[in-house]
Amino acid sequence: MSASPSPRVRMTADERRRQLIGIGLRLLVTRPIHELAIDEVAEVAGISRGLLFHYFPTKRDYYVAVVRSAGDRLLGHTELPEDGSAEERARVIADGFVSFIRRRKANYLALVRAASGGDDRVMEVYQEVRTTLTDRFLDAVGRPDPDAMTRLAVRGWLAMAEEMAVEADAELSTEDLVTFLVEDLLRVAAIPVTD
Amino acid sequence: MSASPSPRVRMTADERRRQLIGIGLRLLVTRPIHELAIDEVAEVAGISRGLLFHYFPTKRDYYVAVVRSAGDRLLGHTELPEDGSAEERARVIADGFVSFIRRRKANYLALVRAASGGDDRVMEVYQEVRTTLTDRFLDAVGRPDPDAMTRLAVRGWLAMAEEMAVEADAELSTEDLVTFLVEDLLRVAAIPVTD
Repeated sequence: MSASPSPRVRMTADERRRQLIGIGLRLLVTRPIHELAIDEVAEVAGISRGLLFHYFPTKRDYYVAVVRSAGDRLLGHTELPEDGSAEERARVIADGFVSFIRRRKANYLALVRAASGGDDRVMEVYQEVRTTLTDRFLDAVGRPDPDAMTRLAVRGWLAMAEEMAVEADAELSTEDLVTFLVEDLLRVAAIPVTD
Repeated sequence: MSASPSPRVRMTADERRRQLIGIGLRLLVTRPIHELAIDEVAEVAGISRGLLFHYFPTKRDYYVAVVRSAGDRLLGHTELPEDGSAEERARVIADGFVSFIRRRKANYLALVRAASGGDDRVMEVYQEVRTTLTDRFLDAVGRPDPDAMTRLAVRGWLAMAEEMAVEADAELSTEDLVTFLVEDLLRVAAIPVTD
């Protein structure tokens, strides 16, 4: 990937932070997070390494901010609609989730790998996103306060949805995939407590 | 974890390889694979760094061998029985899979993280194990040569089984978890082709 340095421009602190995070998200596509070089990020941004550390005190602070930003984007694409049947509401979030992953497959995989890379804070952000998504799907299907088994099952179903969205051939339509997933979710979330 | 050096003993090349792989599997529990230090492995084995490289020419060769060995163990615990109904056969492998993960959760997670860590050969080994497991489950439920959607669904289901085995509280019995999973597998693998 060619990433040419930006010309030096005056930015507010917020703009600069957003710019640096955006660069990290793009670079992550081509390498695992522990190989993401701060020097390269600074160079692409057209700023000094020292200035980058002014915005993000440590390399890990920077990584965590990048992963958090990606998680926020995903959550922004999977908001729970207020109205509709369980199936309709689940469909809207499932479609947001699957579409998000399919459109940004390389980037999504890079971030999942980042989360698996052994950094506890990065892992924590990933788990938070997972938990929020699980809550939204439970809410959608009318089980906002489920037993432990139902929560676990919906969490498992989310892993299934992720795997299928990542592995699906381009020929398979997102609509068919979402239809299949929502059908399975409705069954999975309806299991009675076993004790 | 305290890992005291073994006394220097004469071993055959095969014994030595197995010993070194075993040490790697134990050390992986406490750190991601890219932080696994060759020096530490050699020290625990009571051999020189040079001798370790005699058995595994590069650090990556060693990592790949460790991950492959873990994958072989998992496959050894999930062999497909020859006889039985679809449900019974699926149950045997699902039980092997879930039990294996629950017994070695930290180790299993470390290996999944290793596979996600961005090393292509390690990733390849992980994908091979996934594919073999998917084939076994498809065979178990009588769909050895399925359409693309069924294969994708069973692959997704495997990700669900993994996630649930990793996340399940100790209170949830493996039997209940396996019952739930096999029921869902039978539904998931039965979907008609949509085109």
